[in-house]
Amino acid sequence: MKRIVVALVLAGITGLSIAQQTLKPEDMIHYRKAGLSFISWNMGKIKANIDGSYDKDQVAVAANAVAAAANSGLFASLFAPGTDKEIGGEKTRARPEVFQQPDKFRDLGAALAKEANELAKLAAAGDAAAVKGQFGKVARSCKNCHDDFRKD
Amino acid sequence: MKRIVVALVLAGITGLSIAQQTLKPEDMIHYRKAGLSFISWNMGKIKANIDGSYDKDQVAVAANAVAAAANSGLFASLFAPGTDKEIGGEKTRARPEVFQQPDKFRDLGAALAKEANELAKLAAAGDAAAVKGQFGKVARSCKNCHDDFRKD
Repeated sequence: MKRIVVALVLAGITGLSIAQQTLKPEDMIHYRKAGLSFISWNMGKIKANIDGSYDKDQVAVAANAVAAAANSGLFASLFAPGTDKEIGGEKTRARPEVFQQPDKFRDLGAALAKEANELAKLAAAGDAAAVKGQFGKVARSCKNCHDDFRKD
Repeated sequence: MKRIVVALVLAGITGLSIAQQTLKPEDMIHYRKAGLSFISWNMGKIKANIDGSYDKDQVAVAANAVAAAANSGLFASLFAPGTDKEIGGEKTRARPEVFQQPDKFRDLGAALAKEANELAKLAAAGDAAAVKGQFGKVARSCKNCHDDFRKD
């Protein structure tokens, strides 16, 4: 299987320097789905706290996890052109628009990181009302990208 | 499908307070595999930097992601008894020993978090030699758990 040098993708989309990691396309799909599911799980924990009794420590840990994943470079390095179809048994819901509108995709990824960083800051401070408001912004940031770049 | 209250698991294994999130067993398996794959991807990035040219910023971001995932409560909340077999199409390599030796499993999870936190600290400081040494400790921590609790 042809290998894709992540560096080529990273160099074009983020401010990160060159990475040396090489990944097969199916591994890119696997890892990006893992990162996004990891975000989803942690968002679910925060939502459960907002809707139920609020545990400051658990929300802070979950918000930190969302921010770390949003900043991990997964949008920049794991969506190489051609990975908008099933490869090596790894299914994907990525639309071809990811590669047709890379600037928009990059901007939405950056917006998620920005909102997630703010959520982590508010969660660490423990203000439940502020966390609730900011959680909505992060969730909308997820949805904005899904609407345009993820198949239903 | 019977739902399992994560709180019951969390209360027994971590110092975290009660969580309200409820998850189906297959979702637990899905999310824990996602978290572990997310760790694996980020460990791979750090390894590539150690073996190739070292990018301080990329290593710091990746080490922060490993630490956030190791501290996310995934070992504590996503390994409910009975989830050592395929459920709802979600395969797992978890061995029954996870539930037979919960204290040991908990201790190995805590050891990973401790080593990952140290790695994140060293990576943020940018000392490549120190990161290389500590990376080995984190990798051994992963292996210690896989040896006893993960099927080949």
